[in-house]
Amino acid sequence: MNLEFFQQILTIVATVTLAFSGVLQAARYQMDFFGALVLAFVSAVGGGTLRDLLIGATPVFWAVDPSYIQIIIPTTVLSILALRFYTPPPKLYLVDVADAAGLALFAILGAQKALSYQLIEPVAVIMGVITGIAGGMIRDVLTPTTPFVMRSEMYALAAIIGVVVYTLVRSYIPETAAMITGMLAIFSLRVAAIYWQIQVPIIKFKDKT
Amino acid sequence: MNLEFFQQILTIVATVTLAFSGVLQAARYQMDFFGALVLAFVSAVGGGTLRDLLIGATPVFWAVDPSYIQIIIPTTVLSILALRFYTPPPKLYLVDVADAAGLALFAILGAQKALSYQLIEPVAVIMGVITGIAGGMIRDVLTPTTPFVMRSEMYALAAIIGVVVYTLVRSYIPETAAMITGMLAIFSLRVAAIYWQIQVPIIKFKDKT
Amino acid sequence: MNLEFFQQILTIVATVTLAFSGVLQAARYQMDFFGALVLAFVSAVGGGTLRDLLIGATPVFWAVDPSYIQIIIPTTVLSILALRFYTPPPKLYLVDVADAAGLALFAILGAQKALSYQLIEPVAVIMGVITGIAGGMIRDVLTPTTPFVMRSEMYALAAIIGVVVYTLVRSYIPETAAMITGMLAIFSLRVAAIYWQIQVPIIKFKDKT
Repeated sequence: MNLEFFQQILTIVATVTLAFSGVLQAARYQMDFFGALVLAFVSAVGGGTLRDLLIGATPVFWAVDPSYIQIIIPTTVLSILALRFYTPPPKLYLVDVADAAGLALFAILGAQKALSYQLIEPVAVIMGVITGIAGGMIRDVLTPTTPFVMRSEMYALAAIIGVVVYTLVRSYIPETAAMITGMLAIFSLRVAAIYWQIQVPIIKFKDKT
Repeated sequence: MNLEFFQQILTIVATVTLAFSGVLQAARYQMDFFGALVLAFVSAVGGGTLRDLLIGATPVFWAVDPSYIQIIIPTTVLSILALRFYTPPPKLYLVDVADAAGLALFAILGAQKALSYQLIEPVAVIMGVITGIAGGMIRDVLTPTTPFVMRSEMYALAAIIGVVVYTLVRSYIPETAAMITGMLAIFSLRVAAIYWQIQVPIIKFKDKT
Repeated sequence: MNLEFFQQILTIVATVTLAFSGVLQAARYQMDFFGALVLAFVSAVGGGTLRDLLIGATPVFWAVDPSYIQIIIPTTVLSILALRFYTPPPKLYLVDVADAAGLALFAILGAQKALSYQLIEPVAVIMGVITGIAGGMIRDVLTPTTPFVMRSEMYALAAIIGVVVYTLVRSYIPETAAMITGMLAIFSLRVAAIYWQIQVPIIKFKDKT
């Protein structure tokens, strides 16, 4: 089998698994959609991001290779939907095995990237370990706390919508107008959310009855 | 109205509002002055700092543009003083609206900066959202914990004083002498604080009586 | 006395002290060996790492100067062994004094590095303070939580072993074979750990009887 292809398949499997682990955690802590998206991202690309920052490989990998975003967002949406119909058992062996494959891949690829930046072997070992496990660590640090932006009245969602609007309209109208449009969208969504106390629904497991 | 000027006004409003939100949080968790300063900084510039790190725009923006520091430090001091005379109600609508303006501005400016680094639109959206909300997230992650340096016997204060001394005296005496002076200042302040158990006062709301 | 030499001695003392403070914290929170190693690293080099990221000095200092790793790893191992035979009193004056020396050194060196990057004095002060104290702050943020990778069934250890294997064998076998060997090592260790529920022992203070 071709190594390149094998690596790509494993990367997809690992990214999906880690993103799913983030959504599971978000559901456990009753976060909203944005919380689930943050935890999915952090779990999937947090380790590699920290490695890239430490070795100076910026913009970080997922900012230049859009495939990670393309995997993580649908995985998050589908996982949230799936959790409405099915509550997974606390110990998921299949997830554990996929997670082991992901850890294996990311740790080795992380060490390889560090070596390609001319760093010595012991440093490459540290970078490999960081790539493999720091995502899960950051996910865990973020959760018991549940930062308020992850469960408030449409806080992050307002930002997401406004920034999407800005990036969409700037091809058609002048930059200044696009900026003001985006800013007005965010501002009015936030003020509306505060005024009418609009809540983003939290992620829930299927009710056990 | 001129866009440049409008942007500057909004940036000041947003920075002041976010810094104030950090001081409020510090008061809720009974931190000392340094804790309030850290939370004010993190709230105001944390999101943009994370964006700059991820896209490789270093030194980060507030390290090259001193106006942020010039806004945050007086805001912190004045907020602390104000909280001695006035306990704000738990839900501050004015702050919420100013915060909405800040979120709107920072998210759009963050996306714009990412686009100027040739990153694709979906990545720019993520960077815009990070710029707008990551500061508040980091502030919340830092608080339930209250890291010990934020409330111990003059720990951070010793470092601040000594480093200020070092940067001040190095124009007048040789570099080596300036370093030793700064180091001795920090060391002796810390040892004195340990020995006499000198406490930095915590931030308090006005007593309700 | 020669300043260079004095600085080196102080750096070693500070690094050992801060790494030891990390191991102590790990023992308090009943973490495993990997948790102790992470906390020792974060405590010792976390502040300087954050400074390097913010000013754009990447790869960060400990990735290009292996002496930090060479100090931290033996310090961690020896501290863990020492804690099996001796439970330190809650307030350690000797550690506090060594810590004061470390704070003094790291804060001044941090400010100096920022100045050498042409940053203005107030920014250098902030960078100096971050260098001196951010390590302890990150250590404290990481602990009440105890991220699961710091206490699970051989999670980080599997990554460490596999990455070490990869970096060792790649001089002798083709890159592709080395990668697969490393990945198989991690994957099989993880699967074995899950299947047989292999636990990494937690760090313990000497039992008080």
